[in-house]
Amino acid sequence: MPIHYPNGKPYQGGAQTAAQAVNYGGRGMTLEQELNATNDYYRQLRMAVVYKKPTPIQIVKVDYPSRAQAVIKEAYFKTPSTTDYNGVYQGLYLDFEAKETKNKASFPLKNFHPHQIRHFSECLGQAGVCFVVMRFVTLHRLFVYPASNLIMYWQAADTGGRKSIPLTDIETNGFELHPKLQPPIPYLAGVDWLIQTKKVGIIDE
Amino acid sequence: MPIHYPNGKPYQGGAQTAAQAVNYGGRGMTLEQELNATNDYYRQLRMAVVYKKPTPIQIVKVDYPSRAQAVIKEAYFKTPSTTDYNGVYQGLYLDFEAKETKNKASFPLKNFHPHQIRHFSECLGQAGVCFVVMRFVTLHRLFVYPASNLIMYWQAADTGGRKSIPLTDIETNGFELHPKLQPPIPYLAGVDWLIQTKKVGIIDE
Repeated sequence: MPIHYPNGKPYQGGAQTAAQAVNYGGRGMTLEQELNATNDYYRQLRMAVVYKKPTPIQIVKVDYPSRAQAVIKEAYFKTPSTTDYNGVYQGLYLDFEAKETKNKASFPLKNFHPHQIRHFSECLGQAGVCFVVMRFVTLHRLFVYPASNLIMYWQAADTGGRKSIPLTDIETNGFELHPKLQPPIPYLAGVDWLIQTKKVGIIDE
Repeated sequence: MPIHYPNGKPYQGGAQTAAQAVNYGGRGMTLEQELNATNDYYRQLRMAVVYKKPTPIQIVKVDYPSRAQAVIKEAYFKTPSTTDYNGVYQGLYLDFEAKETKNKASFPLKNFHPHQIRHFSECLGQAGVCFVVMRFVTLHRLFVYPASNLIMYWQAADTGGRKSIPLTDIETNGFELHPKLQPPIPYLAGVDWLIQTKKVGIIDE
């Protein structure tokens, strides 16, 4: 017996649609779409299991026009408590956020929110592998940057320091990714580098 | 400068409200509420960082009646790809689902969905710590049960085997939890037991 979901449709193996599956390769995809394609790729090759978390919603009113479909008629966006992406890679807990800037010389800290910094800090305290996938859109450059370094800049900014991370620091303390057709954002190379260079599970205070 | 979210309200430190914070202790709480309280407790004591994932929603129409608040006017429930809970504990990736039954002698497999079984299998393949928090409501008994054993029963049921897990098996291969005032569902005791008994990251096939 196939299992049916509340919308009356049988389970088809995840939320991915055929349209999403075709559009790989970075042609006009957003950073989120490229990461979703990357996560699909890593999962299919049994290299890692990572998902983007759904956007948290406060549901107020739901209509049931038919037994086949529930329609949410009133709902509100809630403030997330965490970062967007997490999962497991060779026994390690991965946790990351993806951000991009049009700046050419530095990455603005206003791209981050306090709950993301707090969550990174808590996960580092549990020896999670925490990082940011940073894209410099204009420069066509992409980095994995350790959350521990981000936290240092965040704390410095709180006490009057600069409000952005210089590209030179990201080049020095991050790992540059070179996008491929598959996967579009090969961030596991950056994770391997984080592990090798011991930039994992440590908050420099 | 306080950071403002799309609803125009400043960030207040997570989605938790005062009302949610008060109602600890298992008095009339649902399994989900008790696990949320447990996760808050573990996080505050820096023992683990675990969250329930938001319900995935397909948003179709959003109204902006004022600059202060976006109202979702049409949206649909999507089929989740994963289990409900994940996070990090002492460097380990935790992944679990919470389920309850009114049965007294066995736990029905129909409580689980194919995507949950597939996700458990994939996470075990990456050496994640995967389990179910199972409550027998009528018996007032609560267990941590390894996902690897659940998968064995699921596969057996697919080939004509029984459609439920006997309580005797859960007593033998699971870890019984004894609810407390704080935390209501002390599942980390079950996680420690899973790790010690090596029921982690292994799929018996």
